[in-house]
Amino acid sequence: MKAEIICVGTELLLGNITNTNTKFLSQKLAEIGLDVYYQTTVGDNIERIFDATINALNRADILIYSGGLGPTEDDCTKEAVCKALGRECYLDNQILEDILKFFSNRKMPESNKKQAYVPENSEILLNDMGTAPGFYIEAENKIIILLPGPPNELTHMFSKYVLPKLSQYSGHTIKSRVIKTIDIGESSLEERIIDLIDTQTNPTIATYASSGQVDIRITAKADNTIQADALLDDMQNKLNKRIRQFIYSYSNESIEEAVYKLLYNKNIRIGFCESCTAGLATSMLASVPGASKVLERSYITYSNLSKIEEVNVNKHTLDIYGAVSKETAIEMARGLLKNSAIDIGVSITGIAGPTGETKSKPNGLVYICVASRNKHLLGEKIFNSDRENNRIRSAKLAFKLIREFVLEL
Amino acid sequence: MKAEIICVGTELLLGNITNTNTKFLSQKLAEIGLDVYYQTTVGDNIERIFDATINALNRADILIYSGGLGPTEDDCTKEAVCKALGRECYLDNQILEDILKFFSNRKMPESNKKQAYVPENSEILLNDMGTAPGFYIEAENKIIILLPGPPNELTHMFSKYVLPKLSQYSGHTIKSRVIKTIDIGESSLEERIIDLIDTQTNPTIATYASSGQVDIRITAKADNTIQADALLDDMQNKLNKRIRQFIYSYSNESIEEAVYKLLYNKNIRIGFCESCTAGLATSMLASVPGASKVLERSYITYSNLSKIEEVNVNKHTLDIYGAVSKETAIEMARGLLKNSAIDIGVSITGIAGPTGETKSKPNGLVYICVASRNKHLLGEKIFNSDRENNRIRSAKLAFKLIREFVLEL
Repeated sequence: MKAEIICVGTELLLGNITNTNTKFLSQKLAEIGLDVYYQTTVGDNIERIFDATINALNRADILIYSGGLGPTEDDCTKEAVCKALGRECYLDNQILEDILKFFSNRKMPESNKKQAYVPENSEILLNDMGTAPGFYIEAENKIIILLPGPPNELTHMFSKYVLPKLSQYSGHTIKSRVIKTIDIGESSLEERIIDLIDTQTNPTIATYASSGQVDIRITAKADNTIQADALLDDMQNKLNKRIRQFIYSYSNESIEEAVYKLLYNKNIRIGFCESCTAGLATSMLASVPGASKVLERSYITYSNLSKIEEVNVNKHTLDIYGAVSKETAIEMARGLLKNSAIDIGVSITGIAGPTGETKSKPNGLVYICVASRNKHLLGEKIFNSDRENNRIRSAKLAFKLIREFVLEL
Repeated sequence: MKAEIICVGTELLLGNITNTNTKFLSQKLAEIGLDVYYQTTVGDNIERIFDATINALNRADILIYSGGLGPTEDDCTKEAVCKALGRECYLDNQILEDILKFFSNRKMPESNKKQAYVPENSEILLNDMGTAPGFYIEAENKIIILLPGPPNELTHMFSKYVLPKLSQYSGHTIKSRVIKTIDIGESSLEERIIDLIDTQTNPTIATYASSGQVDIRITAKADNTIQADALLDDMQNKLNKRIRQFIYSYSNESIEEAVYKLLYNKNIRIGFCESCTAGLATSMLASVPGASKVLERSYITYSNLSKIEEVNVNKHTLDIYGAVSKETAIEMARGLLKNSAIDIGVSITGIAGPTGETKSKPNGLVYICVASRNKHLLGEKIFNSDRENNRIRSAKLAFKLIREFVLEL
């Protein structure tokens, strides 16, 4: 079965927004083994949506639309598709009631009534997140699916109501696993596994880089889940042999989630003393629900004086080695431990850029120290990115070091 | 002149990557007044690229391709387009030399030779960022432009070599202005200006919501820049009358950038005491280059004890009113001012969720206090979002209050 994705929206043609629906739908269809040959985007124009529909009916079996189901006059996906299929629309009183309920606090704009019109012989897909229902239509061996454009409405409706229906057209099981790495660049990582990427067709391997980390997605196609898992396990073992030291998780979790679990399970309380990252690392940890169980307090010591006053960095150390130095990083981390409620102190001090570099200390230089009362672990790195990414990478590297340190305890 | 964008790449059809090239190209074409009616994405398949080309030649005047110019066998955009136009490709020795130069340190893979083949009667677009050249072809009143797929190569080549050529086909000037609002939801904002949005065709108005703020883009089409500016000024005045209190900037800057400039210009040094946001607000301010000029230090007081020890919150206040209360927020902000280097103290304390709510204090409740030595400003809000967004919105609201407080000084 071949699928085509048709996105409707003049805002897409104007480049006002990035089209994330197409990526989402394509990925989901690939996961169940349905091929997408074309993605088309067209404006809020009934004739051009009609033309795109005729085109797609000639070359695909499943047509999935996004957008153009709203209440305004512009919205005409339903009308154009019905015209192409030779179907009428009728007013559905149940949907009208649902929409009225949505507006229970205020008057429903008259235009919203338009959303209660339903193509003949179509199945209604409920919109749990908004007012525009979607539609699932079977017509002459074709399947036509109309989804609302707002990404939260589309992803919810597709996952809940459409995916189970389409899965029956997939001849096999597709399973993916995400392996999370940190502290290695995408090209260095690829160099180490390029032969696996190039020669493997099942499972396939793809890498995705984001700031400071690279995810590896391995995807297996098999007759059943057990076979798919076996293929994934085999590939995971191969990857472990090459890049074990950079992997922090075999499930799709962030480095801060992985570290949170580790701290929570070992009943360890942590505090940060951040300079260049200025709260970013603490904020990342606090983004995990329940963070208060492992996070005691942190200091953002931006000025030199604050490093002295808050965490007892020696003025001499700052004078001789500077704020961005191994020596200062160690004193910052150890200074946190004056507080008996903190088991592990973590410091981050660096030059985020674009200003601040000196002859011996380039932009992107960062020192990180993780300290307990009887040992410490020091990290030093020069990142070559912009201010924002240097800060994010520094924070992520700190979590990598915390993980290593705590695993050794 | 109507344009069509054709992206080539199986990775797009699989949903492996987000298509940012289409947005970029669409936006640039809209800016010079060229209409895009269709965006098409097709895989690395010569027949389907050929079909898409025939389709596009029937409905557009300018065809812009992205991708499929690489060295591998998969890459066949050039071949498919030449087939559709009835043109041959020949080996261009100058390009071959350029590619060899690019590989000066290492052996050029034989496959890269493919990139030195050039469609007859085409203009070569140099690739300053990689090896694949682009092409500009005029054929039977159509313009066909082939660009490489990697976004940095495409954006550079398009801006430097293609845009100046296409600008001659634009009959008018397009100018946009972004008006930044905060602390009002998209639907409430739209309600206040819906008549302007609905009736205006020039300038057009579009709103874009992100966490805690809404941007309004107004775009004018005119014969020249002066006329376009006049149209934008007129619309800006209309918007000011409706929603002045929510606007923090008329240029495309973040709230933290706006606040940084204000603090810097008034020579004010600031410190934060953050609980639920846990460093997020300080980190946002520190993302602005030069932040050390206005940021002294901050405390992340996650535990109750840290609120007492670091910023002198009274234990009684915590016992009676709780950590998430007006009273605690005020004491946290004032506590920062014990440090003579801090001119303004800002506190944020709230319940980010999803756990932690009580009968009287729901998830999303936040108190913010901005205090100088002789006055303070208090904010209270209940956000209805998830943990991450409640924290981001709280931090942004803090910046809004800082801005108001400092403007009153």
